Amino acid sequence: MAKFIPVEPFNIVIFGGTGDLSKRKLLPALFHRFLDGQISTDSRIIGSARSKLSRQDFHNIAQESCRKASEEKLNFDNWTDFSNLLDYQTLNATQPGDSWSELTEKLGNLKDRPTIFYLATSPNLYVQICESIKNANLVHPRSRVVLEKPIGTDLESAQLINSGVGAVFDERQIYRIDHYLGKESVQNLLVLRFANTMFEPLWSRTSIDNIQINVSESIGVAGRAGYYDQSGALRDMVQNHLLQLLCLTAMEPPNTLNDDNIRTEKLKVLTALKPITVQDAPHKTVRAQYRANTVEGEDMAGYQEELGEDSPSNTETFVAIKAEIGNWRWAGVPFYLRTGKRMSSRNSEIIIQFKTAPHEMFGNAGLTEGNKLVIRLQPDEGVRLFVQIKEPGPGGLRIKLLPLNLSYAENFMVRYPDAYERLLMDVVRGNLSLFMRREEVEAAWRWADGLLQAWEDSGTPLTYYLAGTDGPPASEQMLARDGRTWSSEIE
Amino acid sequence: MAKFIPVEPFNIVIFGGTGDLSKRKLLPALFHRFLDGQISTDSRIIGSARSKLSRQDFHNIAQESCRKASEEKLNFDNWTDFSNLLDYQTLNATQPGDSWSELTEKLGNLKDRPTIFYLATSPNLYVQICESIKNANLVHPRSRVVLEKPIGTDLESAQLINSGVGAVFDERQIYRIDHYLGKESVQNLLVLRFANTMFEPLWSRTSIDNIQINVSESIGVAGRAGYYDQSGALRDMVQNHLLQLLCLTAMEPPNTLNDDNIRTEKLKVLTALKPITVQDAPHKTVRAQYRANTVEGEDMAGYQEELGEDSPSNTETFVAIKAEIGNWRWAGVPFYLRTGKRMSSRNSEIIIQFKTAPHEMFGNAGLTEGNKLVIRLQPDEGVRLFVQIKEPGPGGLRIKLLPLNLSYAENFMVRYPDAYERLLMDVVRGNLSLFMRREEVEAAWRWADGLLQAWEDSGTPLTYYLAGTDGPPASEQMLARDGRTWSSEIE
Repeated sequence: MAKFIPVEPFNIVIFGGTGDLSKRKLLPALFHRFLDGQISTDSRIIGSARSKLSRQDFHNIAQESCRKASEEKLNFDNWTDFSNLLDYQTLNATQPGDSWSELTEKLGNLKDRPTIFYLATSPNLYVQICESIKNANLVHPRSRVVLEKPIGTDLESAQLINSGVGAVFDERQIYRIDHYLGKESVQNLLVLRFANTMFEPLWSRTSIDNIQINVSESIGVAGRAGYYDQSGALRDMVQNHLLQLLCLTAMEPPNTLNDDNIRTEKLKVLTALKPITVQDAPHKTVRAQYRANTVEGEDMAGYQEELGEDSPSNTETFVAIKAEIGNWRWAGVPFYLRTGKRMSSRNSEIIIQFKTAPHEMFGNAGLTEGNKLVIRLQPDEGVRLFVQIKEPGPGGLRIKLLPLNLSYAENFMVRYPDAYERLLMDVVRGNLSLFMRREEVEAAWRWADGLLQAWEDSGTPLTYYLAGTDGPPASEQMLARDGRTWSSEIE
Repeated sequence: MAKFIPVEPFNIVIFGGTGDLSKRKLLPALFHRFLDGQISTDSRIIGSARSKLSRQDFHNIAQESCRKASEEKLNFDNWTDFSNLLDYQTLNATQPGDSWSELTEKLGNLKDRPTIFYLATSPNLYVQICESIKNANLVHPRSRVVLEKPIGTDLESAQLINSGVGAVFDERQIYRIDHYLGKESVQNLLVLRFANTMFEPLWSRTSIDNIQINVSESIGVAGRAGYYDQSGALRDMVQNHLLQLLCLTAMEPPNTLNDDNIRTEKLKVLTALKPITVQDAPHKTVRAQYRANTVEGEDMAGYQEELGEDSPSNTETFVAIKAEIGNWRWAGVPFYLRTGKRMSSRNSEIIIQFKTAPHEMFGNAGLTEGNKLVIRLQPDEGVRLFVQIKEPGPGGLRIKLLPLNLSYAENFMVRYPDAYERLLMDVVRGNLSLFMRREEVEAAWRWADGLLQAWEDSGTPLTYYLAGTDGPPASEQMLARDGRTWSSEIE
């Protein structure tokens, strides 16, 4: 197994340190990397929020969250060691005050080590927090700031955030995180494409029929319906996660894996995405919302009920899009994007659907499907290559599409690191490859805004699907019009 | 699993019915297909040889051989059923006589069903046996003759056999068998190439660095040294098995899988094989003979000792050849052929070695090798595709070449049919795809004769290797001169 290369000692301040993201992801990720020996004992992890908490209170919160994440790993000794790194600082992040001086003292000399400000707060605080950081004289060439998505709710608000944060930090100090990019299987997509001779010659309209990017969630919006209703699936998922996956799948080979080279190639994909016009919207997109349903005895509320408002919401919880990339490589190859809440399963994958063999020579031996490369992100991570194989045996020639499995869990028998682990360590290392540059975020918003406007101008209606299903019939119909279907795994 | 489609009732006469091939392969193959329900109870299997044996004697011989081949399957009931099909006919195959009338009687009306004459005898009897068959009036449009390799020992003798047999049977009644072509993994090679979109675009000098065809045997020649000394590895293995595998690997996609279309494409490969000239022979070929060695306590005799003659034999038991195909697809791609007796293991495979990625962008992450497709024929059959994969884990980017396994045994959990089973049923079905046409055999001899002549004219010396090793250093050196190595499986 790969050795862990320790990162240099660092300080991290988590704004929103007692919030959901911090508890579910950030603190456990740091704990795991500490256990793996990658984080030295003189690094400092400072939780921060408005609440007045003691250091011990924060230890308790952190311990509880790390225990939940890895019950079997945490013990008295390693927790004692890890908790020595933890501290807490009460802060009104948007106002100066004594608490900022206390933080400054805790951070010590900014020259000595990277200092990371992780903004796990509402995006509308990003600019103010950065200004506070500046006012507290904590901006130094070795300082870094991490921004969680969503960065804005449209192009204009994204530009405001980017400009505000950019007035405090240089672009190369800003880490816009999308945790999908930290997944092993997404990393492996780059290796598959560029470390092998065999895929790149096939990676174009010549051999590929269509590409599907599917991010299905089985949960609904319960608990955050109020927030979600302002957003919807396009803003919440497509503008960031799905477009990022599309970029990595579709981009030209970068000159090197240098972060700016990768980001430049991704940007080229985003700017090549054909705008979806008023004329396109009704037949190249589907927007839908889930309704109450009972599946295997489980009653699932509809979105409107979860929202708890009388006036009908027009927010989409499902979106399907036929996207097209206007460049030489991908001309004519549809990229079908689909994401929804309350779908039949939690299941995210990128499916490269190759064309069928151009010449049929096996008669009725069973050949019907083209090769398929499936990069699976959820629930498990892995890669499967579907190949037509001769079924052995005496029954004459029979051909079957079978998966060659590259399941990581099976092949490597190692603990599967959470995406945040890798991304946090990349921040410490100063590696921006997996983070989005300003232009990327804005190009993605430009395209998404265009689609939102097209929906409005065309009056593309909201359709409905039953909770626990794979979306509305209109989604199947959209592909059926192209003579295709949504791909499903063949086991 | 695939259903067994029964073949029509047939008669088969095995000349050499009590010989080694009949006992080890043909009778067990027929027994297995009978158990699988593919051979009906009114088919007839008639062993034939000079020895005067009763029907019961032959039953006993057959039972013993089927028991050896499948101890766990044979029981009283199924043996009784199968043995009802078995009969024996004493025959002097080269002379007319009463025994031929008895055979004629046993075969009944030739119009009713296919009648197969399987010549499991010495090739120098082929023509005489065919003439006897003709004299006994057993040639009928539904008659077929199966010829075992070797067909001749050079072009001239092959032409004599082909002409002699061809004077009795039409070309489409003649089944020249090469059991390598009946192997599932060889069949699968055609499916991989032509039922998938993804391989054919890569299948040329553009993506492939070299192709290796390796047929290693661990046994020596003990017991048949006298015969072998007249032949040698080139005649015994390369002229037939290795060239046939080369043909299927290198041929252009046939218009259809119609037998003559496949055979025409194979012939085109054989005629495109560049002759190995007197100038080429010393550096494009290696010929060697094994010497005594002790491996892990096992004493292995040298070839010369096994031969038991004083004067040193010049016969090669090992040959390595850098072959080249002079056509558009394969210009500049070497086909390295290697076969030997008394090698370190029994191991046959076709290795498609792809080029490395044209542009190195992963630094020292571990990328060194190109993709590799390994079609394995022995000891187990299977296909492996080696792909560069990202090693998961927190240790930064590490790339590893890993096999995607298409092992038949694991994937399908079915009994692996012996090559002879399939080929025998193909004879009954009248499917010539996997049998060699006259021109193929002769083209292969033409090339092999040229090489033999070049050896003689150039005085290419015999080198030596130790029994139980992978051949002489000259074989490694031949590839080293091209900056390559013989591929070995990476587990």
